[in-house]
Amino acid sequence: MRTIEISELRRLTLARLRQGFSKEASERMAEVILFGEMSGRASHGIQRLLPGSYGPLDEEPGPDPMIERLSHNSARVDGRPGMLVASIACDLAIDLASESGMSAVTARGSRSTSGSLNYFVERMTEAGMVAVISANTLAFVTPHGGKGRLLGTNPLAMGVPSSGRPFIIDMATSASNVGEVMAAAAAGTTLSPGIAVDSSGNETRSPSDVLDGGALLPFGGHKGLGLAMMIELMNGVLAGAGAAPTGSSDGWGHVFVAMSLKAFGDPDELRQRAQEIIERFESAPTVDERPPRIPGRASLDRRDQALARGSVEVDDEAFDQLVSLVDGSSAS
Amino acid sequence: MRTIEISELRRLTLARLRQGFSKEASERMAEVILFGEMSGRASHGIQRLLPGSYGPLDEEPGPDPMIERLSHNSARVDGRPGMLVASIACDLAIDLASESGMSAVTARGSRSTSGSLNYFVERMTEAGMVAVISANTLAFVTPHGGKGRLLGTNPLAMGVPSSGRPFIIDMATSASNVGEVMAAAAAGTTLSPGIAVDSSGNETRSPSDVLDGGALLPFGGHKGLGLAMMIELMNGVLAGAGAAPTGSSDGWGHVFVAMSLKAFGDPDELRQRAQEIIERFESAPTVDERPPRIPGRASLDRRDQALARGSVEVDDEAFDQLVSLVDGSSAS
Repeated sequence: MRTIEISELRRLTLARLRQGFSKEASERMAEVILFGEMSGRASHGIQRLLPGSYGPLDEEPGPDPMIERLSHNSARVDGRPGMLVASIACDLAIDLASESGMSAVTARGSRSTSGSLNYFVERMTEAGMVAVISANTLAFVTPHGGKGRLLGTNPLAMGVPSSGRPFIIDMATSASNVGEVMAAAAAGTTLSPGIAVDSSGNETRSPSDVLDGGALLPFGGHKGLGLAMMIELMNGVLAGAGAAPTGSSDGWGHVFVAMSLKAFGDPDELRQRAQEIIERFESAPTVDERPPRIPGRASLDRRDQALARGSVEVDDEAFDQLVSLVDGSSAS
Repeated sequence: MRTIEISELRRLTLARLRQGFSKEASERMAEVILFGEMSGRASHGIQRLLPGSYGPLDEEPGPDPMIERLSHNSARVDGRPGMLVASIACDLAIDLASESGMSAVTARGSRSTSGSLNYFVERMTEAGMVAVISANTLAFVTPHGGKGRLLGTNPLAMGVPSSGRPFIIDMATSASNVGEVMAAAAAGTTLSPGIAVDSSGNETRSPSDVLDGGALLPFGGHKGLGLAMMIELMNGVLAGAGAAPTGSSDGWGHVFVAMSLKAFGDPDELRQRAQEIIERFESAPTVDERPPRIPGRASLDRRDQALARGSVEVDDEAFDQLVSLVDGSSAS
């Protein structure tokens, strides 16, 4: 790991993105990448600027994403890459819900990561919205007792604004994720028991078995499977994304639902009420008398600390590759 | 167990409910009770008509629930009992979303069960709505490492309509539920490992330890905790329910979100697309070559079978108590 100033990382990230995209699109996506890096989720940081990472530069160039307005409070964004359509859809969901209280904006057509969903949830909570975001992604998950890849790792992210910090969760509905399996394969370590199967559907702890036609299992048993299937279906139906996988070119899906606090009462009072409840979470009694771990909090803490320092720790190899991709281009 | 005709069970259920409620309110709630009984979830059936069951007749009599319209697509239902306000809120969510594409209707003020949430989800899917319902309930759950009751068992239920049967999930965000703990205590059996703690926060398999100031844990580890807290917070803020528990009299909360298929495209096409995805779930390959178990399906199958037979299997003791409560009343 090495310490890089955020301004320098932003410059390199933008330069790399500009190799494939317009200035405006690159600026949108750079913020998503930087959030991933600063929040300590390296798998959604500069790693995604390297070839073969299901990142924005892995997609074939396409036209600008197309926005189809479906009703006064719903719309669909069609196009690629994932980070760009997600960013556009997020802003549109905020705009529509600011006008009519609630909105749903879907996205489809990409085959690359949208970045960390908690980045988008935070943007929505900053605008005074309760946010519910889900996505269906590359098929990599099988039901318990199944074999072959049926479902994406299908993240679900939600957030509620408060008068203090928002409460935000962001979770894959799989017991692990593609990045962790690839990292274990690279490091030569084994997976936790009970989270993955090989191509015949037999439990395995070998990451290469999983990458070689195997699959992850859902988190949390049958309930997690229900959530994973619901997200696959909801994105397949509402966003028109490929689902449970088809051979179609409909790509991955996103559904952004925004509900303005204004639709439920006085926003300041509701924010205050949220803050009081969050404080009761934070002060709940524990066996070891240490404060309980609040889901979603650690990654936002890391981001805040990185911003305060003005720098971030990055992976040496990923950073060197990024520099070489950018320098190679400017030298050519 | 004994077999009772549904018409007879409806008559008895209505007669019991009429001891506390108007004809219209009783008819609404009877359908919820019958759904619970027919779908095989006895803990949400006639059991809830007995004293001390957190059922509708356990609540102090109150005025008719009050509907407060908050905006063109949002409203709050304030009052009790839970089944009645949930039923009113569900219908209102459907009506508002039929007009404006999306709606959110909250409920608060009750301290008794709303019944099975999949009953309400099914009603919403029948009206062409994608449904997301959550509730925060009696505090009975502690975070991992915690002690004392901080969160409800906080169910989350969702549904998507299709051209065939809807896809519906309905899950507590706790690893078990109050009914199962009470049943284990009555039967003298132990709980599964890793799902509950005693009043000091130490793991226990004794149901009486849990009932005596202990607590259940969330399902699915840290992700389940995140969902449980999110539902507690969202209901506390949007519905104005008591949360993380306060000494206030705000009661339990519900949030009904309805999104009409019409807001996302041609409803018939979307229903067809949903059906195709569900069929791919149903035909996914498995290790033992038996069809995969589809979450949420078994309870609706049982309900359909009960309706086809015209009868349902009920618990002897609960049924006898119900008969005696009804007969005792008509004889007095």
